[in-house]
Amino acid sequence: MASRPSFREFAEHWLPRLETEIREVLRCPDPMLAGHYRMMHYHMGWLDEQFRPGRFPTGKRIRPLLCLLACQEVGGRPEDALPAAAALEIFHNFSLIHDDIEDQDTTRRHRPTLWALWGTAQAINVGDGMFALAYAALLRLGQQGLEPPRLLSIVERFTRTAVMLAEGQHLDLGFERRDRVTVEEYLRMIAGKTASLLAASLAMGAAVGGADPEAQEALSRFGHNLGMAFQIRDDILGIWGDPAVTGKPAGSDVLRRKKSLPLLYALAHPEVGPVLQSRWTQALGPEEMPEILALLDQAGARAYAEDVLQGFHREGIQALEEALGFRAPASPLMALADELVERVA
Amino acid sequence: MASRPSFREFAEHWLPRLETEIREVLRCPDPMLAGHYRMMHYHMGWLDEQFRPGRFPTGKRIRPLLCLLACQEVGGRPEDALPAAAALEIFHNFSLIHDDIEDQDTTRRHRPTLWALWGTAQAINVGDGMFALAYAALLRLGQQGLEPPRLLSIVERFTRTAVMLAEGQHLDLGFERRDRVTVEEYLRMIAGKTASLLAASLAMGAAVGGADPEAQEALSRFGHNLGMAFQIRDDILGIWGDPAVTGKPAGSDVLRRKKSLPLLYALAHPEVGPVLQSRWTQALGPEEMPEILALLDQAGARAYAEDVLQGFHREGIQALEEALGFRAPASPLMALADELVERVA
Repeated sequence: MASRPSFREFAEHWLPRLETEIREVLRCPDPMLAGHYRMMHYHMGWLDEQFRPGRFPTGKRIRPLLCLLACQEVGGRPEDALPAAAALEIFHNFSLIHDDIEDQDTTRRHRPTLWALWGTAQAINVGDGMFALAYAALLRLGQQGLEPPRLLSIVERFTRTAVMLAEGQHLDLGFERRDRVTVEEYLRMIAGKTASLLAASLAMGAAVGGADPEAQEALSRFGHNLGMAFQIRDDILGIWGDPAVTGKPAGSDVLRRKKSLPLLYALAHPEVGPVLQSRWTQALGPEEMPEILALLDQAGARAYAEDVLQGFHREGIQALEEALGFRAPASPLMALADELVERVA
Repeated sequence: MASRPSFREFAEHWLPRLETEIREVLRCPDPMLAGHYRMMHYHMGWLDEQFRPGRFPTGKRIRPLLCLLACQEVGGRPEDALPAAAALEIFHNFSLIHDDIEDQDTTRRHRPTLWALWGTAQAINVGDGMFALAYAALLRLGQQGLEPPRLLSIVERFTRTAVMLAEGQHLDLGFERRDRVTVEEYLRMIAGKTASLLAASLAMGAAVGGADPEAQEALSRFGHNLGMAFQIRDDILGIWGDPAVTGKPAGSDVLRRKKSLPLLYALAHPEVGPVLQSRWTQALGPEEMPEILALLDQAGARAYAEDVLQGFHREGIQALEEALGFRAPASPLMALADELVERVA
C-alpha cells in the first residue's frame, strides 16, 4: 500500500491549481473595471499597492484545502471540487475585507487593508463584488458536469453558512460594547463566525466527491468541532502564547480587551469575576499583566479553556471516524486536526 | 374577454403576499439574534427606531412586482414567482443599505439610515446578512417544486446581476472623484447599477413562468431598456423637474454636482464644455442656477437626454413585443413602461 501524502504535500500539490481557479473567477472582464478587480487582486496577495504583480502573504487557504481534501477522502477527485474550494476562499476574503472595515483594522498580513488604502466606500463595494463572485465560482461546478440537484444542495449549504457568518459577526460586534457576555453566547458567536465556514468547507467537498448525506453531515460536524477547537486555541494563545513564537505581545488579547473564552469564564467566576471586572474598566497596560494573569490563574481559566477545546477536538475526531470509518486514523484530516489544535502560534 | 387588470390593481393584489414572503425569509431564528434581524425589519419599513411595529415608507417594490408580472405575462402563476420576487427586493435593500454608507447619506425615505442609527460596522454586516438571505429567498423556489436545472439557471442569472451591480457601483464611486467622465462610461455605470436588476427581475419571473430562453432574453432586454430610460428620466427630473412636484430644490442634481447624463453631455460640448467646466470647479449655489441652466440649454443637453431616453424606451417596447407578441399592447408591462418614462416626479 502506497503511503498517504501528508496535508503539507497535499497543499503543495493543489495550491497552484486552486490559485489558477480563483484567478479565473476574479478575472477583470473589461478594462473600464480594472480598478475594481485590481483591489480584489491586491487583497488576494497578487498585486502591490501600485497594482504591480508580486507574491504577498495570502493566508493559509485552509478552507479550500479542507474542501479539496474532503472530496478526496470520500473517494472523489479533488479537481472536481476546485470551483467549490475557490468559492470558499473568495467568500472568506470578502468577509475579511468587511471585518477589517468593521474593526477599523489598518493592517492584515503585514500590509495595509483595502479600506485604509482606498477608502471605506470602495472597500465595502469590493467586498460585495467578491461575495457575488463567490457564488459565480461555486456555479462553475455545474459546467464541470455536477448534477443540478447535488449542486443546488451545495448552493443551499453555502447560503446557510453565509447567513450564519453574518449572524456570528453581529454577536461579535455587539460583545465589544457589552459588559456581560455569557460563555454560551460566546460559543454561539464563534460557531457562526469561524466554525460554520469550516464545516461548510468539508461538507461541500464531500458533496462534490459523491458522499452520501450521512457522511456529508459527519464531515460537517468534524469541521464544526475543528473550527471551535481552532478558535479556542487562538484564544489561549492570545493570552498565554509565547511572544517569541506568536509575534504578538504577551497577553495581547487582554490588552485589546478581547472577550475571549478564558476571560469570559474568569469574569463569571464568583470570587475572581468582580475583581477582574473592576480591573477591566480601568486602563490596562503591560504593567498590569502579571496581576491579570494571576487572576485568570486563580479562576482556572486556562485549564477550563483547554478542557473545552479538548472536548471539541474529541467530538471532531469521533465525527471523522463516523465519516471515514477505518480509513480515519490514516487520513491527513486526522493529522490536520491534531496539528491545528496543538499549534503554538 | 375580461379586461386586463392595470399595474396598480396587480400591485395592490400582490403586495401583501410579497410582504408575507419577505417577512418569512427575514424571520429571526433565535432571540439572541434579535438585534440583527430587527435592523433589517427597520430598514424594510416594518419597525420604528425603537423596534416598535408600524408601517413606514417601503419604496415601491417595483422589482418584485415586475418579476411577478413577467411570470404572469408569459402564462405562469405569479404565486410561483414569490420567492424570486422576495429575493430581488431583499437584494435591492441590501444594496441600498451599503449605498447609504458609501454615499454617507443620513436619511432614506424620510427616516434615518441604518448606519446613521446603529453605526457603520453593524450596517455593513446587516447588509451582508441580507445579501445572503436574498439567496435563501431565491432557493425557496426549489421547495415549491421548480425543477433544479431551471432553478440553477435563475441562480446563475441572479449571480451575474449581483456581480454587475458591484461593477456599476464601482464606476459610480469613481466618477465622483474624476474630472472627466464620458457618456459611454456613464451609460455603462447605470447599466450595471440600475438596469441590470430590472432586467433580472423580468427574466427571473419569466423563467419561473416557464418562458423559453428567447422570451426570457427578450424580457430581460425590455427590463434593461426600461431601467436605462428610467434612470435618464431621473437625471432629467434632477435638473429640470418641477420643485413643487419632485419635492427637491430646482436643479438639485447640479447643486449636488451629480455627474448625470445631461451634464456629462454638456461638459463634452466643444464650446459650452470649457465654460461649464470652469463654473463647475467654483462654488455653486441657487444664484448660479440660471447661468448653468442657460449653458445646458446652449449645449442642447436636455434634448439630447430626451433623445437617448426615447431610444431606450423604443428598444424596450420592441423587446416586449418580441417577448409577448400580439399580447404586448394590452400588457400592464407596456403601460408601466410608458408611465415610468413619462413620469414627472
